Amino acid sequence: MFVEPIKSPGLAQISYLIGDACEAAVIDPRRDCEIYIALARQRGCRITHIFETHRNEDLLSGAPILAQLTGASVHHGPDAAGDVRYAQTVREGDDFTFGAMQLRVLETPGHTDDSLSFAIYERGQNEAGTANRAIGVFSGDALFVGDVGRTDFYPERKEEVAGLLYDSLEKILALGDQVILYPAHGAGSTCGGNIADRDFSTLGYERLHNPMLQIRDREKFIASKLAEHHEKPPYFRHMEQLNLVGCRAPAQEMTPALISAADFQRLSAKPPAEKPLVVDVRGVTAYLGAHLPGSLAIPCGMIPAFAGWFLQPDDEFVLVADSPSQAEAACRHLARIGFDRVLGFSDTALPAWAAGARPFDSIAAVDAATVKSRADGGHDNWRILDVRGRKEIAQGIIAGAETIFLGNLPKQLEQLSKERHYTVMCASGARATIAASILRRSGFQKVDVFLGSMGAWRNSGNAVTSPGDE
Amino acid sequence: MFVEPIKSPGLAQISYLIGDACEAAVIDPRRDCEIYIALARQRGCRITHIFETHRNEDLLSGAPILAQLTGASVHHGPDAAGDVRYAQTVREGDDFTFGAMQLRVLETPGHTDDSLSFAIYERGQNEAGTANRAIGVFSGDALFVGDVGRTDFYPERKEEVAGLLYDSLEKILALGDQVILYPAHGAGSTCGGNIADRDFSTLGYERLHNPMLQIRDREKFIASKLAEHHEKPPYFRHMEQLNLVGCRAPAQEMTPALISAADFQRLSAKPPAEKPLVVDVRGVTAYLGAHLPGSLAIPCGMIPAFAGWFLQPDDEFVLVADSPSQAEAACRHLARIGFDRVLGFSDTALPAWAAGARPFDSIAAVDAATVKSRADGGHDNWRILDVRGRKEIAQGIIAGAETIFLGNLPKQLEQLSKERHYTVMCASGARATIAASILRRSGFQKVDVFLGSMGAWRNSGNAVTSPGDE
Amino acid sequence: MFVEPIKSPGLAQISYLIGDACEAAVIDPRRDCEIYIALARQRGCRITHIFETHRNEDLLSGAPILAQLTGASVHHGPDAAGDVRYAQTVREGDDFTFGAMQLRVLETPGHTDDSLSFAIYERGQNEAGTANRAIGVFSGDALFVGDVGRTDFYPERKEEVAGLLYDSLEKILALGDQVILYPAHGAGSTCGGNIADRDFSTLGYERLHNPMLQIRDREKFIASKLAEHHEKPPYFRHMEQLNLVGCRAPAQEMTPALISAADFQRLSAKPPAEKPLVVDVRGVTAYLGAHLPGSLAIPCGMIPAFAGWFLQPDDEFVLVADSPSQAEAACRHLARIGFDRVLGFSDTALPAWAAGARPFDSIAAVDAATVKSRADGGHDNWRILDVRGRKEIAQGIIAGAETIFLGNLPKQLEQLSKERHYTVMCASGARATIAASILRRSGFQKVDVFLGSMGAWRNSGNAVTSPGDE
Amino acid sequence: MFVEPIKSPGLAQISYLIGDACEAAVIDPRRDCEIYIALARQRGCRITHIFETHRNEDLLSGAPILAQLTGASVHHGPDAAGDVRYAQTVREGDDFTFGAMQLRVLETPGHTDDSLSFAIYERGQNEAGTANRAIGVFSGDALFVGDVGRTDFYPERKEEVAGLLYDSLEKILALGDQVILYPAHGAGSTCGGNIADRDFSTLGYERLHNPMLQIRDREKFIASKLAEHHEKPPYFRHMEQLNLVGCRAPAQEMTPALISAADFQRLSAKPPAEKPLVVDVRGVTAYLGAHLPGSLAIPCGMIPAFAGWFLQPDDEFVLVADSPSQAEAACRHLARIGFDRVLGFSDTALPAWAAGARPFDSIAAVDAATVKSRADGGHDNWRILDVRGRKEIAQGIIAGAETIFLGNLPKQLEQLSKERHYTVMCASGARATIAASILRRSGFQKVDVFLGSMGAWRNSGNAVTSPGDE
Repeated sequence: MFVEPIKSPGLAQISYLIGDACEAAVIDPRRDCEIYIALARQRGCRITHIFETHRNEDLLSGAPILAQLTGASVHHGPDAAGDVRYAQTVREGDDFTFGAMQLRVLETPGHTDDSLSFAIYERGQNEAGTANRAIGVFSGDALFVGDVGRTDFYPERKEEVAGLLYDSLEKILALGDQVILYPAHGAGSTCGGNIADRDFSTLGYERLHNPMLQIRDREKFIASKLAEHHEKPPYFRHMEQLNLVGCRAPAQEMTPALISAADFQRLSAKPPAEKPLVVDVRGVTAYLGAHLPGSLAIPCGMIPAFAGWFLQPDDEFVLVADSPSQAEAACRHLARIGFDRVLGFSDTALPAWAAGARPFDSIAAVDAATVKSRADGGHDNWRILDVRGRKEIAQGIIAGAETIFLGNLPKQLEQLSKERHYTVMCASGARATIAASILRRSGFQKVDVFLGSMGAWRNSGNAVTSPGDE
Repeated sequence: MFVEPIKSPGLAQISYLIGDACEAAVIDPRRDCEIYIALARQRGCRITHIFETHRNEDLLSGAPILAQLTGASVHHGPDAAGDVRYAQTVREGDDFTFGAMQLRVLETPGHTDDSLSFAIYERGQNEAGTANRAIGVFSGDALFVGDVGRTDFYPERKEEVAGLLYDSLEKILALGDQVILYPAHGAGSTCGGNIADRDFSTLGYERLHNPMLQIRDREKFIASKLAEHHEKPPYFRHMEQLNLVGCRAPAQEMTPALISAADFQRLSAKPPAEKPLVVDVRGVTAYLGAHLPGSLAIPCGMIPAFAGWFLQPDDEFVLVADSPSQAEAACRHLARIGFDRVLGFSDTALPAWAAGARPFDSIAAVDAATVKSRADGGHDNWRILDVRGRKEIAQGIIAGAETIFLGNLPKQLEQLSKERHYTVMCASGARATIAASILRRSGFQKVDVFLGSMGAWRNSGNAVTSPGDE
Repeated sequence: MFVEPIKSPGLAQISYLIGDACEAAVIDPRRDCEIYIALARQRGCRITHIFETHRNEDLLSGAPILAQLTGASVHHGPDAAGDVRYAQTVREGDDFTFGAMQLRVLETPGHTDDSLSFAIYERGQNEAGTANRAIGVFSGDALFVGDVGRTDFYPERKEEVAGLLYDSLEKILALGDQVILYPAHGAGSTCGGNIADRDFSTLGYERLHNPMLQIRDREKFIASKLAEHHEKPPYFRHMEQLNLVGCRAPAQEMTPALISAADFQRLSAKPPAEKPLVVDVRGVTAYLGAHLPGSLAIPCGMIPAFAGWFLQPDDEFVLVADSPSQAEAACRHLARIGFDRVLGFSDTALPAWAAGARPFDSIAAVDAATVKSRADGGHDNWRILDVRGRKEIAQGIIAGAETIFLGNLPKQLEQLSKERHYTVMCASGARATIAASILRRSGFQKVDVFLGSMGAWRNSGNAVTSPGDE
Repeated sequence: MFVEPIKSPGLAQISYLIGDACEAAVIDPRRDCEIYIALARQRGCRITHIFETHRNEDLLSGAPILAQLTGASVHHGPDAAGDVRYAQTVREGDDFTFGAMQLRVLETPGHTDDSLSFAIYERGQNEAGTANRAIGVFSGDALFVGDVGRTDFYPERKEEVAGLLYDSLEKILALGDQVILYPAHGAGSTCGGNIADRDFSTLGYERLHNPMLQIRDREKFIASKLAEHHEKPPYFRHMEQLNLVGCRAPAQEMTPALISAADFQRLSAKPPAEKPLVVDVRGVTAYLGAHLPGSLAIPCGMIPAFAGWFLQPDDEFVLVADSPSQAEAACRHLARIGFDRVLGFSDTALPAWAAGARPFDSIAAVDAATVKSRADGGHDNWRILDVRGRKEIAQGIIAGAETIFLGNLPKQLEQLSKERHYTVMCASGARATIAASILRRSGFQKVDVFLGSMGAWRNSGNAVTSPGDE
């Protein structure tokens, strides 16, 4: 018997292929699901079951696609809000066998109403009267390594669902200390704020060391959950809807067509309503050094975290990428969260682009000394714009900085003045570059990026102030 | 029977695996020669012979390494300057058979004294009395698609060797119009200035359309060759020496070790004599956007053309790369021309680097309008530095530009003044970025790069002037 | 500019990706056409055109599929029998440009009425008044290396079309000796009986050495073509029909599902009308050693040549393969000729199969000494069955052997007696193994295979006799 | 932090790459160790440490090779028998840190005197006063999933070392139920007879369910260990010696040279002392169907288990394989246990081989019905030879069968008579095929293989008898 995790970087989502040399199941498949078929083929087994821990809000489920490709059955938890169309509804205590592995369903609501966990056993062992026979648990978004799931998706029932999660965690822990934990997300996910950067754990270890599991009082647990703040990107709603009916497979070709410099320029010259959005997925410094005017910077690895804040499902895109493989990676990231309309990509080197007398832009990277000197100088017309999230802001800002979380920037632009010179910052300069590209697209002329940002500021020994102090 | 070309990009060198389903030979193997073994394995044949068209000056021969790995015999032409140690000397008319293919040696000196060509036949066919039985010829650096080999390697015998090449070309053409041409270089090689960007040709087509073969008079041909100018990078001498004794295999691991940001900084802090050279192999705009102070820019694909001008065989290097695969490609390029001492690489994102309060630099990219306005403004303290080659310069420069060929820049820096502001240009901005990095390393403070360079200048409708006009 | 051949083994079909670093065309794409997209991506170019040299009868065209995936236009020759639905009709002299390459259409009927050849030029060069500007020609099934196309597809017009081919070859040769030949088939194809085993040639070389081009008299050429015999597998008609309307893409998953031994047995137990055909694609000796009763042996590499004789388009199959990769290769071979209904495969080792007390069969391999002794013994009830083709048979058989060409065996079984003991032979034993499996499936009990067959017979110094002598 | 297991099939050995995004360690690297470097590169981390749980007797350690390639330090336990030359000796309680992971050494002798286990912690956590901080343990050959290590390597101290293992297991279990178990072997290893076929477990699960850990009395545990029987292949001694001094890297090329049929025959014709051993690594039925006379059958996947019984370290081999990739897999298996002298391989199809009038052999596969009928017939001159191991034999044999364990067959041949007809059997027919090849090589003429063997016999409802009953 084996358990093989498949990580989707950026989303920090973890799906699993589990089973033995004959039959296998997939837990929480992602949309680009050819990988499960390939892995099963390598192991010589057949995928017979697909299980979903819950209806994902942060990515598209590949279950309906994988079911069609393999003939496997799909199983999902009960939800008063409506059943997932492509799945059979399963309930507490339902048992499934594939190969030598047995899987038992636990209803573990809290993160969502339909949340399930799945305990696994050696075939026949879960029948036994003895306790502590489970050997692993797929805990979905209920329990993570070092954290528990967020419970802010039902604002009107927030106390209730936090309490439900508490109960669900009790139910999971009751499986025993010996159980290996297989959660649906790792560090970096938006589905849990403090997930540890460790790929392996057990219920025993979490029971002893997971901070949230140290709160042994239900009311205190609920209070702690209610005090949390999580960002909720606007694309979540779109995912929830698509995952109710089941999405289609992405186009067979993940690498979009190559677009020549001439065609690129022709597309860019279309009237605004028809003009595709140019998304530059190259690295931060490549964008700063030179980029196409009006292009939106989202470095490839940051697409999972930020594309859902800025892109619309019906938008058409053209990509600027360093290479076909980077374009493919970008398309894969986009497809996982439902953005399929990539018309093509250009890997045209900016020098060649510019040699055609085509226009380009640059954004200056400034260092801590420069920012310090500007800040000390007290220029009226200059501001620091800090685009970090609420938690980071709370830990201190540079005195005088304006703060708008990157995800909210497009709809809060009116808080800024195009007359001003903005130095954009975040923790390192990466999110700041995305923000700077948004400002430039919106007509802000004087924009630069504080490369190193709060990291450089602090490491240079400069002082920070509390956001409330001003 | 098959002929499979293997191209080494950048060097535009072409080696060949030829043979049939049983036995094969390799013509002019490059140093990282595992590819020949892999291709032979795919085809199910055994490499029994290795042939060299001449002792290469622009790359290291993999023949001694491949011979050791496969047990194949190595064959090289006679040279009064001394025989290649790892090879058997072959002569005009020598015949070799592998599988169904027969190969006959032609001595075709001119480019070098030891230059050979190899005609191939169906086994048994070269015995026949009839002419026009050859079906292909490996012409080394004697005959290319659209050009012929350079003849400037024996300055004191330049007329003689140009004449030798003329005679050698006659000998090759006598094989017949039906012969397919397999040269040792394609477009972009430094071994022939005007090689056509076409991967396939025949003696018939070249006889009719190759400009140099239209010169049907030996004296005129010699005169034409003597009027040519070719750059000769300083590493050529090193290659010639190594290819006489035979180089060692590169380290098994082409991807150098990953170096942490901390180790990187520690290495950079060593005394100058021990400090490794930091080579930034990322793209042009990534370097312009932000780079490590003192790092030399050589974008990965430009290593074959330019590393040999700036690096010394005994130098130790650390690389800045976007990814492990880019670092591996860079190491491969370096290994092919004898630079093995890569201590490691960092793919640390500049934002993370800067967040540690580590210093970084940027170089501004300027456009044609800016350059035009500066040129029109007539700033005393500002100059254009054009680093293109002699032929390109001859076709026109921006009025007032200083010209130093990029390869010669390190040793002609004294022609420039550190007090001045230089805008560096080439054809597109790529070579200019390398040049700008050299200037910055050498203490020039005010340096920017004309992105788009002469391409943007001309395409914007601006005038050029003859370099002699000033 | 480049020309990259893509060979489909077994069919010996050659398609081509041609073009430059920007744009490319595909000549005669096969059905599993993701390879063209992958190769174009590697080269960084876009596929803009697809050309077909004729409507193939031996494999499915991938043109309609590739056109949909890439947006490229498809071009096909004129045919009185009806136009190909997914293509634009092109005619003599039509010109196309992609990147730096120019392509001119030549109508070259004979093999089929719609046969075209395509001459390629450097862009602009085919306008020139001068002759001998073409640099390559895609000759389809008109001209091969060492042979010319078969002309037996219009039995009622056989003299006319042989004459048309003669004229077409004249037209092609008129392009000049310098032209590189790029045919649609290599050695081993059923589309030309004597294609040389050489992957490269020129019009000059073929003009001088191709046996068929040495016949310089039109009438003698026609006579020679009329004397030829070619096999025409029954699936050809199916291909012709599908290639008129355009086939669909094969299922995304080329590797069929793995079927457990139990399911395998269950499928085999279905009533004859619903029972899928078990095709054993393992090697010859693996089949002889042990196989599933009733399974048809077609070793994987022999599928292109023989599956079309024995399988029906609507048949459902299950495969026995050594490994998933062999099963995938088999499916790919089958898909190229229109057999898509593979339900799954089993790579179950026969020992494990047999350990379940499931039945298996073996066929004995006998050697030349055994056959000689039996032949000398003059057993009444024993016969040699020689399944080679007409040409091979004509070169001599073992005295007393019965001869039925393998392809015709299923419909000529009534010529054999189930009371007899048959030793099946061919040239080496491979085709004989297929034949033996057909006999066993049909109820013949006493069947063995002469391993080594005619090769071993002759190499052992035994005599052969002319088939007419008896 | 991550733990990535790397399995070596056949040996069922598990090595591990562990660490975080910066630094990593390898536990028990195998000899072909490029995989660790490749995996570390994918993760972007550097290998800084190598740990060995003990000096392996069943495979060669890759530690000295990997250390040279990466610069990592090697750490091994103390052993009175002499220290491993390429490693530093570590002791109970020694701590190591790489990235965010901390590793603590536990001395856990019993299986061998130098056996170590390694507990891992989040960096800094093992300093804490609290218990139950370990999160994983690398238990080497002390504790497996479902079994414990064998303790028969010091025959004169067998009680002592079984007791040592008991104590070591106590020490390991004291780390806590929450600890994930990472053993050095999985199911199928010769290092533990009853390892469960499950890739994952915890100390908690093993404490509760591992049969050997249910023996809570030290004396009873010792008694139980003393009652075990394990086979000890003769190559173990060779491994132990090589692993003391450190083996060399295998030749870079894992795929041996292709050998033509002619060369193959030439090698086979050498005098016995110089003649390489022909090892046929194809599948069972392929060997039965036809094979080279005198070749030893060891199907590729059975090499790890059986090559060490029949091959000598200084033997030279040629392989018969289905494909280059099978030959490579075979060479890799051989290299892992120290057999490097593979001269080449032939993938020549037996039909082609036989067509050259070269001799071949076959072995008949017989089924249960045939064996039953023979057994019932009571032929004096016929015997069943059962080559299964002691434990399997104890569970019942076919009445009248002679039993010799496959590994002992070469040295117990004199117990058999060449006058007799032997039907060889095992559990399924695979080991029987190896045995049959040994008999044939040794001059036994009448040999066939019971395909399905004991599995088929029992599944056909036939009776077995106890070996002692006769």
